[in-house]
Amino acid sequence: MNAPALEQIRQRLPEFKVDVMLVSAAPNVRYLTGFTGSNGLVMVWEGGAVLFTDPRYAIQASQQTGCTVRIVRGSLAAAAAKAIAARRWRRAGFEAARMLYSDFAALGDALPLGASARPLPPLVEQLRIIKSEAEIAAIRRSVLTNSQALDATLPKIHPRMSEADVAAELEYQQRQFGAEKPAFETIVASGARTALPHAEPGAQPLKPNQLLLIDMGACREGYMSDMTRVFALGEPGRKLRGIYAAVLEAQLAAADAVKPGVTAARVDRAARRVLEAHGLGRAFVHSTGHGLGLEIHEPPRIGRKDSTTLRPGMVITIEPGAYIEGVGGVRIEDTVLVTEAGREPLTPNSKELISL
Amino acid sequence: MNAPALEQIRQRLPEFKVDVMLVSAAPNVRYLTGFTGSNGLVMVWEGGAVLFTDPRYAIQASQQTGCTVRIVRGSLAAAAAKAIAARRWRRAGFEAARMLYSDFAALGDALPLGASARPLPPLVEQLRIIKSEAEIAAIRRSVLTNSQALDATLPKIHPRMSEADVAAELEYQQRQFGAEKPAFETIVASGARTALPHAEPGAQPLKPNQLLLIDMGACREGYMSDMTRVFALGEPGRKLRGIYAAVLEAQLAAADAVKPGVTAARVDRAARRVLEAHGLGRAFVHSTGHGLGLEIHEPPRIGRKDSTTLRPGMVITIEPGAYIEGVGGVRIEDTVLVTEAGREPLTPNSKELISL
Repeated sequence: MNAPALEQIRQRLPEFKVDVMLVSAAPNVRYLTGFTGSNGLVMVWEGGAVLFTDPRYAIQASQQTGCTVRIVRGSLAAAAAKAIAARRWRRAGFEAARMLYSDFAALGDALPLGASARPLPPLVEQLRIIKSEAEIAAIRRSVLTNSQALDATLPKIHPRMSEADVAAELEYQQRQFGAEKPAFETIVASGARTALPHAEPGAQPLKPNQLLLIDMGACREGYMSDMTRVFALGEPGRKLRGIYAAVLEAQLAAADAVKPGVTAARVDRAARRVLEAHGLGRAFVHSTGHGLGLEIHEPPRIGRKDSTTLRPGMVITIEPGAYIEGVGGVRIEDTVLVTEAGREPLTPNSKELISL
Repeated sequence: MNAPALEQIRQRLPEFKVDVMLVSAAPNVRYLTGFTGSNGLVMVWEGGAVLFTDPRYAIQASQQTGCTVRIVRGSLAAAAAKAIAARRWRRAGFEAARMLYSDFAALGDALPLGASARPLPPLVEQLRIIKSEAEIAAIRRSVLTNSQALDATLPKIHPRMSEADVAAELEYQQRQFGAEKPAFETIVASGARTALPHAEPGAQPLKPNQLLLIDMGACREGYMSDMTRVFALGEPGRKLRGIYAAVLEAQLAAADAVKPGVTAARVDRAARRVLEAHGLGRAFVHSTGHGLGLEIHEPPRIGRKDSTTLRPGMVITIEPGAYIEGVGGVRIEDTVLVTEAGREPLTPNSKELISL
């Protein structure tokens, strides 16, 4: 149970004019209570907190959390609505960016006459944006696991392997080094397919004289890591080497811009400016990065329009890229911790263009 | 592009008094258009269909779908709202059980004055419940991949492995046999931990004279499979053998009850009755099964209250279980196709209690 976080949520309820907050997003439930099951709902109010879950998780929930646990059959929201009626609360806040419309409608139906469901901003996510020492330690272990998995896989890559074979080996090694699972579907793309920023690994064998892009992350102790590296299979040619050099310059410029007090948008601009100077502005089709933690994508977004001010304890990715259809693409990505002094790139792997 | 499905959606729009349907759930987008990216929205109306996605997927979307593709920056729903305004539509249906409340609110804000967002039932899921020949063939390949992965792993299990090691090997073998990824987080539980229906694999070594429960599924060509088997590590004892025999009897009874015309609830009752007769009614803490296809959990739910009538072309799991805290649990699960003649269990693996 995360007592300080529960207390911070409680203190904000009056500001939003609600008697109680219903937290239903699994990572938020985990953050507040320690419960890792897929079906949980935390009801937080001035005087306490209760975790609702279903009979599949009865044993696990009692082991994982210090909260009061209530086991219910059927809809957790309906059970919460009953508890709200019993206590005569009238204003039940819910996570607007997490609850499905149909669940919102069902909650409204289940609430007693005179009580209403009120949308709340992402209060738990706002707490999660600054990582505790324990969380940073977990992210460091996740990053290390991920990096070890890449290092263990590289010597095994040979030309008869397919992209899917490389992905299978990477994920196997992640497990060997302590990951519970990949943080997301591992991306392995070669040749012109590197121009697809979210390519799915294919079954065809790797071909010589092209690039190989690997975007991988580990989930360890529930915490995510994220890294992209691009390798040369033989000699990819002058054009792709040029793109690589430009993206690396952009990645270093953006990482250098990271420090407390600057906005996320300014970090994004640092990367974008470099790629524009190389004539690759339009080839950079995504944001420079994103926060990560219990989820692979969390606030802040390191993009053009995010005015979030970076603060020590934030963990973000820095991952500019450039993609040219029919030719190929490059993305280079580190996981970076914002520190009092500036930044600490957590990802130890070399960013030289290594030939395999 | 799935032209017949798009046509069936179009024909139902008048029934719900909407001019257009916005389909935003990724598996539904894939079903209608073939697009496999994580961020897509299909707008379907009497005269056509458009797929909205973001610049990361520009190349991929044009390769995967015959639909008109529109690439937009920022919110796909906002882009759809603009298109709705341009065509002077007034009633935009959305997937109530798929859209987040905040996206619903943003859609409402983006729509022009006089136009409104209207919740729709799961129309695409209702089509997906009956699988086409091509889908059944894909599910067969997924089941086969999953079964081969289990068979390849069993000889490698030894006492110094942990649950997590076994899970890593299973997922590696799934990839080797053609899976894109696991269908869900592989469950490997041993000893008293088998009593946790959704146990997360642990790092401690397997101990002798207990049960080992493996619940695994493959995702292949986007289609899921699902299987649970329980093995004996040495001699687990008379009590656990008794539970195993009871659950197997329940599994066979429920599978036998599957045929066109019966309700999902009746199949559930068939399993429940057997376990109750063995005094294990309260130890069976979940439903008997669920549909699967592009998602691991789809309609119908094979549970007490689901009145869905089974029809040929449905694919469901049959997976009763019994769990006793501190002692252990057993679940036995096959993927089953409903046929004209009755049923075809797709999972080929033996359901004898095998000693490893």
